[in-house]
This record gives sequence, C-alpha cells and structure tokens, in this order.
Amino acid sequence: MRLSVYLAGEIHTDWRDAVIAACEGLEIDWSGPVTDHAASDDCGVEIFGAEEDKFWHDRKGASLNAIRIRTGIERCDVLVVCFGEKYKQWNAAFDAGYAAALGKSIIVLQPPEHDHALKEVDAAASAVARTPEQVARALRYVTTAKL
Amino acid sequence: MRLSVYLAGEIHTDWRDAVIAACEGLEIDWSGPVTDHAASDDCGVEIFGAEEDKFWHDRKGASLNAIRIRTGIERCDVLVVCFGEKYKQWNAAFDAGYAAALGKSIIVLQPPEHDHALKEVDAAASAVARTPEQVARALRYVTTAKL
Amino acid sequence: MRLSVYLAGEIHTDWRDAVIAACEGLEIDWSGPVTDHAASDDCGVEIFGAEEDKFWHDRKGASLNAIRIRTGIERCDVLVVCFGEKYKQWNAAFDAGYAAALGKSIIVLQPPEHDHALKEVDAAASAVARTPEQVARALRYVTTAKL
Amino acid sequence: MRLSVYLAGEIHTDWRDAVIAACEGLEIDWSGPVTDHAASDDCGVEIFGAEEDKFWHDRKGASLNAIRIRTGIERCDVLVVCFGEKYKQWNAAFDAGYAAALGKSIIVLQPPEHDHALKEVDAAASAVARTPEQVARALRYVTTAKL
Amino acid sequence: MRLSVYLAGEIHTDWRDAVIAACEGLEIDWSGPVTDHAASDDCGVEIFGAEEDKFWHDRKGASLNAIRIRTGIERCDVLVVCFGEKYKQWNAAFDAGYAAALGKSIIVLQPPEHDHALKEVDAAASAVARTPEQVARALRYVTTAKL
Amino acid sequence: MRLSVYLAGEIHTDWRDAVIAACEGLEIDWSGPVTDHAASDDCGVEIFGAEEDKFWHDRKGASLNAIRIRTGIERCDVLVVCFGEKYKQWNAAFDAGYAAALGKSIIVLQPPEHDHALKEVDAAASAVARTPEQVARALRYVTTAKL
Amino acid sequence: MRLSVYLAGEIHTDWRDAVIAACEGLEIDWSGPVTDHAASDDCGVEIFGAEEDKFWHDRKGASLNAIRIRTGIERCDVLVVCFGEKYKQWNAAFDAGYAAALGKSIIVLQPPEHDHALKEVDAAASAVARTPEQVARALRYVTTAKL
Amino acid sequence: MRLSVYLAGEIHTDWRDAVIAACEGLEIDWSGPVTDHAASDDCGVEIFGAEEDKFWHDRKGASLNAIRIRTGIERCDVLVVCFGEKYKQWNAAFDAGYAAALGKSIIVLQPPEHDHALKEVDAAASAVARTPEQVARALRYVTTAKL
Repeated sequence: MRLSVYLAGEIHTDWRDAVIAACEGLEIDWSGPVTDHAASDDCGVEIFGAEEDKFWHDRKGASLNAIRIRTGIERCDVLVVCFGEKYKQWNAAFDAGYAAALGKSIIVLQPPEHDHALKEVDAAASAVARTPEQVARALRYVTTAKL
Repeated sequence: MRLSVYLAGEIHTDWRDAVIAACEGLEIDWSGPVTDHAASDDCGVEIFGAEEDKFWHDRKGASLNAIRIRTGIERCDVLVVCFGEKYKQWNAAFDAGYAAALGKSIIVLQPPEHDHALKEVDAAASAVARTPEQVARALRYVTTAKL
Repeated sequence: MRLSVYLAGEIHTDWRDAVIAACEGLEIDWSGPVTDHAASDDCGVEIFGAEEDKFWHDRKGASLNAIRIRTGIERCDVLVVCFGEKYKQWNAAFDAGYAAALGKSIIVLQPPEHDHALKEVDAAASAVARTPEQVARALRYVTTAKL
Repeated sequence: MRLSVYLAGEIHTDWRDAVIAACEGLEIDWSGPVTDHAASDDCGVEIFGAEEDKFWHDRKGASLNAIRIRTGIERCDVLVVCFGEKYKQWNAAFDAGYAAALGKSIIVLQPPEHDHALKEVDAAASAVARTPEQVARALRYVTTAKL
Repeated sequence: MRLSVYLAGEIHTDWRDAVIAACEGLEIDWSGPVTDHAASDDCGVEIFGAEEDKFWHDRKGASLNAIRIRTGIERCDVLVVCFGEKYKQWNAAFDAGYAAALGKSIIVLQPPEHDHALKEVDAAASAVARTPEQVARALRYVTTAKL
Repeated sequence: MRLSVYLAGEIHTDWRDAVIAACEGLEIDWSGPVTDHAASDDCGVEIFGAEEDKFWHDRKGASLNAIRIRTGIERCDVLVVCFGEKYKQWNAAFDAGYAAALGKSIIVLQPPEHDHALKEVDAAASAVARTPEQVARALRYVTTAKL
Repeated sequence: MRLSVYLAGEIHTDWRDAVIAACEGLEIDWSGPVTDHAASDDCGVEIFGAEEDKFWHDRKGASLNAIRIRTGIERCDVLVVCFGEKYKQWNAAFDAGYAAALGKSIIVLQPPEHDHALKEVDAAASAVARTPEQVARALRYVTTAKL
Repeated sequence: MRLSVYLAGEIHTDWRDAVIAACEGLEIDWSGPVTDHAASDDCGVEIFGAEEDKFWHDRKGASLNAIRIRTGIERCDVLVVCFGEKYKQWNAAFDAGYAAALGKSIIVLQPPEHDHALKEVDAAASAVARTPEQVARALRYVTTAKL
C-alpha cells in the first residue's frame, strides 16, 4: 500500500531524515513544512515587503507557510508529528488537531516526559512512538503488511 | 473502468487469492488488511513496546492496523467483505458499516446460514455472493461492462 | 451540555432502560432502533406484502429498519453500542462502523470475554464500559462536567 | 444573530467567567471543556476502573473528555481559545487546529509574549485579543452588529 | 422519533393528502414542492417578467421552484416520491437521485406496471409502496417503533 | 416552509428594509452583515487597538466582520445579494461565490446595466430580480407555495 | 484541461459513439453505464442466481449496475445525459439528480419536444444540447479553451 | 511539493504569462478560465444557437464557461486571483469566494489603490501580491521550500 506521509512539528533535530532513511525502499510520498527556520520566519516579508510591526511580520510568514502546510496535511494519509525538547511547539499541536478533524491517521513522536501534557493529542492518534525507528517500523508495517 | 477494491473480513481462508486469481487481467487495484493473524495481533507491542494488560496490548495493535484499514477503505470504490465460519468477525461488520457511511459500494460474501444474521449488512450492499467466483464475475462485469 | 445519544445493539436485555434510568434528570435526547424483535423482523412484509423467499423477507425488514437506525445515528452526538451474550450481533458492529465513519463519539458496553474480538471496535471508541451504570456515569460527566 | 461559542484552553484562571459576564444579555450559547482539573485528569479511571500505567490512566481520561470537547467544537460558530502563562497547553492548540479544519471562526486570547510562538494559530484566527473584555466586545459586535 | 418528510413527484392526485391524513398524530414535519400546476409553471415570469421564448419561460419557473425543492430535500430525513400514471415525471426521478446522493432515505410509491422502468430508483430506496396507506404505515413504524 | 435568508451586498440604500417590509408575516429568519459603514470599517481597530498601516487597519476589521458574514451565509437557505450603483462591491460578489460553493440558493438584485458584468454571478443564481418587491414576491412564493 | 466525462441515459442509439468520435484527440476520460440492454437487465441473476419474482430479478441487476454507475458519476467532472424518444428513462433523470447533488456539471442532450418535461433537469444543467456534435463542441471548448 | 494552481480574474493583461514564465522549472500544474474575451462571451450561442435577448446570450456563455472554471477551482491547491484596472471584475471576486468556501489557499494580485475595496477578499487570502514576480516567488517558495 502506497502511503502519503506528512512530517509535522520539530524542525531543529534531524528526526525527519532518520525516519526517511529508515523507510528506504518503501512506497511513501513524503511531505512537510519548510524546515529552514530563518526562511520560515522571514518568507512573508522577504517576498511581499517588510513590516514595521513584528506581529504582522510574523503573520505574513505564517500565512504563506500555511499554504504548504495545509496542502500537505490535506493530501496525506498519515501525519507524523514530533514534539521536541525546545520551544512552545503550538504549531505542531495545531497541525495535529487540523489533521484529526480531517480524519487523518496520526503517529506522535514524543519523549516520555511529555506524556501527560500530550494526552489529548495522543488520544487522537493511532500510535505514540519514542524513536524515529519506531515510526519507520510502523510505516513499514502499514505499507508492506509485514512486521 | 478501473476499480479500486478493498477485501475486508475473514483472514483464515484463501478467498482473497481466489477472487484475485479469478480477476486476472482486470484493471483492479487491490487492497486489504494485514492477513498474517499473529502479526496483526502483535504489531502494536512488537513495535512500540510490551503491555502487561492484554486489553492495551490489543488496543495498540488494533490502532496501528486501523491506519492501513481506513486508508484502504477510504480509497476504494468497492468493499468486498467476507464472513467466514469462525470467530466473531465484528471487525468485518465494522468495516462494512464504515464503508457504508462513506457511500462505498459493498459486496458481501457469505454462506446462506448467515443470511438472517447479516440482513442489515446485506441491505446496505450492492450484492450478496456465495462464492469468490461470483464476486470475481461481478467485478469483471463492472470493470469490463461485459457478462 | 445537551446530548443526543443513540443506543445501538443488543435488544434482548434491559440495558437501555438501565442506562436511561441512571441518567434521569440529564439533558439527553435518546434514540435507538426498534427493540421489539418480532416487529423488527417482520415489519417489511407486514406493511409491504409477504415474500416467499426468506432472504427478501429479511431484506424488506432490514431496509425499513435502516431508515430509523441511520436517521438516529446521523443525528446523535454519542453512539452507545452494547454487545451481549447471544447472537452474531453483526448489525451492532455495523452501526458502530457507520458511526465511526461519521466521526461520532462511541461508547462500547461489553463483557470482558469479548475484549479480544472487539478490539477494532474498541480502538475506534472513546470508552469501553462494563455496566450500564458506567455508561450513565460517563454521560453524566460529559453533560454536567461533574464527576 | 444568536451565536454558539466554545471557550477552549487555559483552565486555571477565570477568563471564561470574565468573558461570559461581559457578554451578559447577548444571545450566546456557551460551551467548553470540563474545567475542574482533577476531574478532567481522573474521570477515565474514576468511571471505568484504575490503570497501573499512568499513560493509560491519561488515555482513558483524555478519550472521555474528548466527547465533550469535540461535540462542543463541532456545534460552535466561534471558538475562543486562551493561552495562559503556565503549562504546555498543547490541547489548546490542538483544539484550535481542529476548529480551523472544520472552518470555524477563531478568536485567540493571548499575552504579547506568546505572539511569535502562536503565529501559526493566529494566522488561522479571525482576531487576536489581549483581554477577556476585548473578546466580549468582539462577540457583542458580531451578535448585535453594534460597536 | 420526530421525522422530516419530503413528498416529491406526482402533483395531479391527492396522494399527499392521503399520506398526511393517515399519519395524523405522528411527529412528522412535512414539506414538498408547489403543487399548483399553473403557479409552478408560471411563477418565474409572473414575478420576474415575461419571456418570449417558452424555453426561458420554463427555465425561470424551474429555477425558482428549485429553491423550495432543494431546501426541502436537504432538510428531510425521508423523501417519499410518487410516480403517477401521467406525464414524463422526470423531475420526480431527478429529485430521487438528488436525495440518494445526499444519503437520504427514500420510499417510492408506484404502481406495479412501473416496476421495471423504476428498478434503478427502487434499488436506491428503502421501500417500495403501492398505496399511500403503506407509506403512512411505514412512517408510523419508523417514528413510533410500533407496527 | 420556514426559510433562513441572508441579505448580502449593498449597504448604502434601504433595499434590506424594503425586502423585509414586503415579506411581513412570512416565516423568514433574516440575517446579514453589519450595515453601519463606519462601524464595519473600524470595528477591528476600535476593539483590538489601532494600526498605523491602513492595510492592517482594514484587515482587522474585515476579519472580524467575516465571523458574522460566514456564520450567516453558512446558516442560510437563500442568499439575496444586491449590487448597487456605487463602489466596487467585490465583497458582494465574494459572498455570492462563497454561497454558491456551499450550494446555497442565490437571488441577485441588480439593475439591467450590470447584466453583462454580472453574468457569471447570475448564472449561479436561482433568479435575477430588478426590485426589492420582486425579491419579496419570490420569497413569499417559496415559503407559502402561493403566487 | 483534461476532463472526466460520464455519458448517462439513452442506450438504444449511438449518440455515445457520435460524441466520442467528434471529440477525437481531446484529453477526455470517458465512462458510462453498461449499454448492452440484455446484460444490464439480467446481470444480477446471471451472476448471483435466478429469482422467481421479476421485482427481485430487476433489483439484483439494478443494484449491481449501480456500482458502475455511481463510481462513474462520482469520478466525473461533467455528466452528459441524453433523453431519447423511447422508454420512461427515469434512470437517466435519476442519474442527473444524483450528479446535481454532487455538484457535477451537467450537459443535457434532448429533442425540443422534451423541453417542458425536462425543465427541472435543464435548470440544473450547464447547457442543453440538441445534437451530439453540440455536446462535442462544448467539451472541446472546455478542454481546449478554443471555440 | 507539486502544486495545482488556478489563475483567476483579469484577462486583458499578460499577468498569467508573467507568472508562468517566472515559475519555469517548478512542478506546477496550471489551469484557468478561457482568456479569449470574444470566445468567452459568445461560446454559448456559437455552440448552442443564437439568442435574441442579450441576457440569455450571456447566460448561455457564462454557464458553459462555468464548467471549466469550477472544475479548475475544485482541483486546485492555490487560486491566484488578479484584480486589474478595468471592468467590474465581479467574476474574479466570485471565484475567490467560491475558492474560499472550498478551503483553497488564495493569493491576491492587486494594485494598492484597490486595497480598501478588496479588504474582505484579502482577509480570506494567504497573501496579497503587487506583482506577478511576487506571486511566482511565493509559489516557488511553497513548492521548493527555498526562498
């Protein structure tokens, strides 16, 4: 079974590369947000012109990034969302909620210390993984039907 | 007409192979659940870690399997669901209900002794077949427009 | 919070009465299938004329009953489905699948011996209860926000 | 215009009371999650039985709370979501994402220090408020068409 | 169970009155098209101005009538459609198709001589009745759960 | 038939009052945008704080007004949209497109000189009226089934 | 623009061949019902076993044919429906209604003598054609953007 | 990320060519309306026969053009809509509203003098561009994830 997988959340570690590498050979179409932090923050003003107010600076960027994010989530079969150690990561949880309302399957990648704080997200998910390798094994099982 | 067909239910006989073999040459994209009973039961704990409580052992597996099942049902044009002789097979009826709510066409494969117990499922179906060959003939007719 | 609750499945015990009685005073609109077994089986031929073939006798009844069942499920916020001791109960699982595809919240009422056979249904549910009182307590909590 | 408003997020301050009080006299139907933190955390095991593993303890509670939360969000016209000073509040962002995917109007109530971290949520919202009074004024304007 | 029922088709006999009379006392909200043939044909040009070309005369009327028809069908739980002895009645079949695509329950009222010509419509219906009394009995059964 | 009608477009003449007055006694629930031009333009900055840049001043207002507009359009059965003599009125056409995509019935109120420019909007509408009285007569016919 | 076109209705003349021939070279994916009248009537009993009652004989065939018909209509961008000289053709009108409810574009091919009887179907259509060549020209214009 | 982009609005300048040229090499599937003004105006009567009344002349053309327009909008991920200097351009705003209701991402291309008149359209958009080059840069960023 060919799958379309969106990799949401955390953009400061290489978990996406680890998942993708561990899924080599599988029929998976990957998508995800822009992971270059600076580009993601400044894309709006870079393209459409500077803003004095940081609030609108951020708005222009977030609105532009949303085109890629929503298109990716709407097309995917499975959203994998990783919650890392740093930052508020509200956009990761927002993406998970967005995917849940669309009926997408969700796999959450999280360290145990986040378990209580993520219980609502986890309850909407098909699986909670601790490592990129677990995510990859799950995707391998779903696509190949083999453990 | 190219068709996408999901083969649901019964995983202890070779009815899927029989249907697929009898449809050779047709433009059909097949999908279905994991049919290795042990893998299907244990996939959750194998990948994400053991559970002491059998209830959660089962939950982890069923949640993971649901990714493949729902993706397959949502993509299909026709769900063929087979009710066999053994087990409760509530998941087969659940899948049929899920497909019905999505407006999918359903073909039920069932022995006559199940007719009364399956009357609600049959009433939501496009056809009730007694043999894999009948299923295949129906799919051949739908895809080729020839009896 | 006013809730609309559909009580699906098992029609040979008084679990519906027990749930409704234990929810007295709550703002809940109840619905459910026809629970008179004979009427449910024969309604089709009684109203629209006899059938020689038991298969079509059943079809006429099941199709008519489906009007009430689907209307009820489509309107509900929560589907409570009870799996009892007897019969195949495929219609109960079918209704649960139908509700799941519509995004309804599901509470399953089942004895522990059905746990393994119902794992796919349970994985799509918000809660698994063992007694009508637990179902009622859950509904009370959801509607009143008080334990 | 009568409105249905869901008050999501933050349960440790009295912002809900402040909004509701400031909207007195308006035709607004309010809903929201269970705001008793202990009840919210323990409802699952209280009603359906204890769990040794905290992870499943949390799952049972979160799954039950989700019935109320999703029913409320699906019914609402406007979701107001408040991000407070404490906790991870991923469920608040998750609810906002869920509402966004359903096409609901969103008003975010947040302190300026969260502006950058909430830029993706804000970009999906109709308004960003700093105080409960601003939220109330906005709701008053929408329902009465008067500033 | 309160039902919303749309009475489609045939406007030259009193079958609607017969159904409604036989359902007295039931919780049913009735709707249907304009049944005054002349008004139905001429409403468009009467209100918005004459047309020289009969084709556009008809278009203006049919477009206006469609507001009432579609609103009624979209709101209903059950569409009862009667095929009479005269006229082409393509609008009746069109309304049935429209209702079927929306997932509405359909009851067809038809004389036996139309059985073969209506087989596709009947296959999408929950019941085929021969008399208004049968329609009423079916609706009584669905709303009261009693034969 | 009770109707919900949204009155979109033109806010500088009294066409809404004329339609509503001419519909006196009909079962119609009316809704529409804020028609106080100044309030509509300034609501965003009035409530949430001033903006130096007129572009964001406008954005804040338009986003807030959209809550009322979208809620009204999503609830309505019929959208009546009036194109007047002045201003660009792109929001009127935008609302009509929004309603069309939701499958709402549309009645356009326009002077003949706009016919060519509005041909795409008109082609998506159920009727094109020249006066508020014609709109009212059409609504009267739809709700009462009488010319 | 590549188009998917479903050719519904009339199966006793060669209008489908005429349309397809006149569209040679265009990027159009064609679909349609089984046009072999005998196969279409008898497919159900041929595959799944004979029925004594003609009513159920027809039902079995119509239900099986519906798989192909609904799959085709749901996939298409444009439904072309032809109303010929003979038969009741209620299935043609039913298919048009089904397509209309799904928001598909409809082109009706009909002789002028059917204009009044088809006014409701025409009012839901994008165009009314008199000849297969007109249908082909319209499809050519839509796909190539050239008259 | 491969994107499907619909270019709506303004057909009297070469902005479409400018955007497409500046996007050379990107994985974008382009669509848009017929941009030959004369063909667009007269296609209906050219193909289906002349009309005396200009109103119906326009209706026939607009209805036929709508097949291409709606198919394109429904398939796209991003609708770019350009508001030029001339004409009423209500169809451009109508298309934007249609896309907004379907949840499509929207980029508006407009001169600053239209800012106030377009504020409602802009508030539903992901970005407001001033030049075709900005549109192209945004699409490049979304598809390649690089500034």
